[in-house]
Amino acid sequence: MIAHSLQREVFGPAQRLHGATYIVDALFESKKLDKDNIVIDIDHALDVLKQVLKPLEYQNLDTMKVFKGKLTTTEFLANYIHKQMARKVRKNFKGHLTITLGESHIAWASFSGKVK
Amino acid sequence: MIAHSLQREVFGPAQRLHGATYIVDALFESKKLDKDNIVIDIDHALDVLKQVLKPLEYQNLDTMKVFKGKLTTTEFLANYIHKQMARKVRKNFKGHLTITLGESHIAWASFSGKVK
Amino acid sequence: MIAHSLQREVFGPAQRLHGATYIVDALFESKKLDKDNIVIDIDHALDVLKQVLKPLEYQNLDTMKVFKGKLTTTEFLANYIHKQMARKVRKNFKGHLTITLGESHIAWASFSGKVK
Amino acid sequence: MIAHSLQREVFGPAQRLHGATYIVDALFESKKLDKDNIVIDIDHALDVLKQVLKPLEYQNLDTMKVFKGKLTTTEFLANYIHKQMARKVRKNFKGHLTITLGESHIAWASFSGKVK
Amino acid sequence: MIAHSLQREVFGPAQRLHGATYIVDALFESKKLDKDNIVIDIDHALDVLKQVLKPLEYQNLDTMKVFKGKLTTTEFLANYIHKQMARKVRKNFKGHLTITLGESHIAWASFSGKVK
Amino acid sequence: MIAHSLQREVFGPAQRLHGATYIVDALFESKKLDKDNIVIDIDHALDVLKQVLKPLEYQNLDTMKVFKGKLTTTEFLANYIHKQMARKVRKNFKGHLTITLGESHIAWASFSGKVK
Repeated sequence: MIAHSLQREVFGPAQRLHGATYIVDALFESKKLDKDNIVIDIDHALDVLKQVLKPLEYQNLDTMKVFKGKLTTTEFLANYIHKQMARKVRKNFKGHLTITLGESHIAWASFSGKVK
Repeated sequence: MIAHSLQREVFGPAQRLHGATYIVDALFESKKLDKDNIVIDIDHALDVLKQVLKPLEYQNLDTMKVFKGKLTTTEFLANYIHKQMARKVRKNFKGHLTITLGESHIAWASFSGKVK
Repeated sequence: MIAHSLQREVFGPAQRLHGATYIVDALFESKKLDKDNIVIDIDHALDVLKQVLKPLEYQNLDTMKVFKGKLTTTEFLANYIHKQMARKVRKNFKGHLTITLGESHIAWASFSGKVK
Repeated sequence: MIAHSLQREVFGPAQRLHGATYIVDALFESKKLDKDNIVIDIDHALDVLKQVLKPLEYQNLDTMKVFKGKLTTTEFLANYIHKQMARKVRKNFKGHLTITLGESHIAWASFSGKVK
Repeated sequence: MIAHSLQREVFGPAQRLHGATYIVDALFESKKLDKDNIVIDIDHALDVLKQVLKPLEYQNLDTMKVFKGKLTTTEFLANYIHKQMARKVRKNFKGHLTITLGESHIAWASFSGKVK
Repeated sequence: MIAHSLQREVFGPAQRLHGATYIVDALFESKKLDKDNIVIDIDHALDVLKQVLKPLEYQNLDTMKVFKGKLTTTEFLANYIHKQMARKVRKNFKGHLTITLGESHIAWASFSGKVK
């Protein structure tokens, strides 16, 4: 549940400081299952996702150093979370990771890429 | 998609300026159908709902006059929208109106009351 | 998945012959559970619901005798299905029955009443 | 919310004139974000989708010239809408477009292809 | 995610040991908001719900002392969880509590009653 | 609605006998539509899916011969159902088949592969 503003003309009223609830989903794909017949330990995946999201919760992204000078669109945030997740699951998972941010029941954005 | 802060201890990290996507549902209940076999004209209901929500879209509620000194919890906002809706549909609808604000797929609040 | 037309001015373009997918839900409420700790046998409830819906499936309601001269709004259909269901579950269920017809993920109508 | 009939034996009772509510989703995929950190302007995408769907709303497809002699299955309609959308977003979007038509909460069809 | 068997004829194949994922929702209703403009502190409500569900997670209900000789239908479990929740939220909440157990996207049961 | 246990350390409390409701979705993809403008006859697809799921309904997988010595994870079951489905739809469908098992509204697994 974050606040932010998107200061480009294309965003219309979203140029104002406003907010969003993001539902974040992580999808892990691999060609083979591991010795325990799973793609990834779901508890581990959830832990990592929570760690990555923690610093963003209940924040005004406009005032966070890490996003200084950035346009924090849903697409950008999906990519940002993907990078953080990829770094943390690398030891336990090789394959394809997709991060999806739902901002309402009709609008969402994803970033999809390899974890190697 | 609004920004706001909830400045009471009970709200923990939500005391900071953050944001939310609210999905707003309106439920109309009546004992009888009208001469067109409907509870309310759904296009009229949607128009009124849009009118009521318009001034709240992409806003920082903390800076809006109408919410000055108010704790803009989901419960409070459901009540606020209910009052606005009730005033506007009164001519065309007598019955029970429930306004629900979904803030995520697991959390929501409603206000329910008569329109007379 | 039915076709119908709603020939009153208030329905605008829905005065034309058009169609709808209806998702029909039945809610049974009672004050006490029966000797098997259930409100109603769910298989029985589903059977009855299927029997009631069968004659409506893939039909043009405008050409069905039973709806002659009727405005087949969602509200009307919810009431119609409620009456049919009530008659058929009466032996096995005393309580409150609500029939809901979802016509899309944002619009639906219910009829709620006692089964005695 | 359209009416139509599917006049081939394989469709069983759907050979009769019946109807459907279609929920239409458009998914835009691109390899890179544009200078505003987005895949496509969502307001533009929604406008185009509405333009494309407008002539189909509350219609009996069996009587529309454009579908004369066509079997208007969900698959066919997904392809038809994809073609119309592709033509209209071409200036602002290069990438992959998927159009999904949900006909109920358990059945849907998509068409997926490049916009170039 | 529990295992259990329902040993009465009416349950057909569910007389065998089988299992279910239950999604548990708690709905709190009150006539007035508290001094913080809320019905209940949602974090407190979630904590209590987790405490109540903890002993049931990943269990075979047939082997739990507390359910000895009981028919653990969805209705029964909704009532059981309601009683546990009511006892624990009593200090902070007066009003109406509804516990809903979803066993699939088409079947669920609730128990609703006062907390005093 | 099955019972099973997952007897490896990584599964924590799920090593105990517990259960799950699985919602099983089948997705059929092909490059071309057939002469009836469809990917597959949906009634045929549903029939085949029901046939494949029938022997698993209301079972304790730990006691079924076919799963002896197997870790019946969601991933494993998706693959198992895919193999069964592929064999049965081969005559009427060439293309890509994805089987998804939803175990709750937040966790699911798929297996995706060609049917040839």
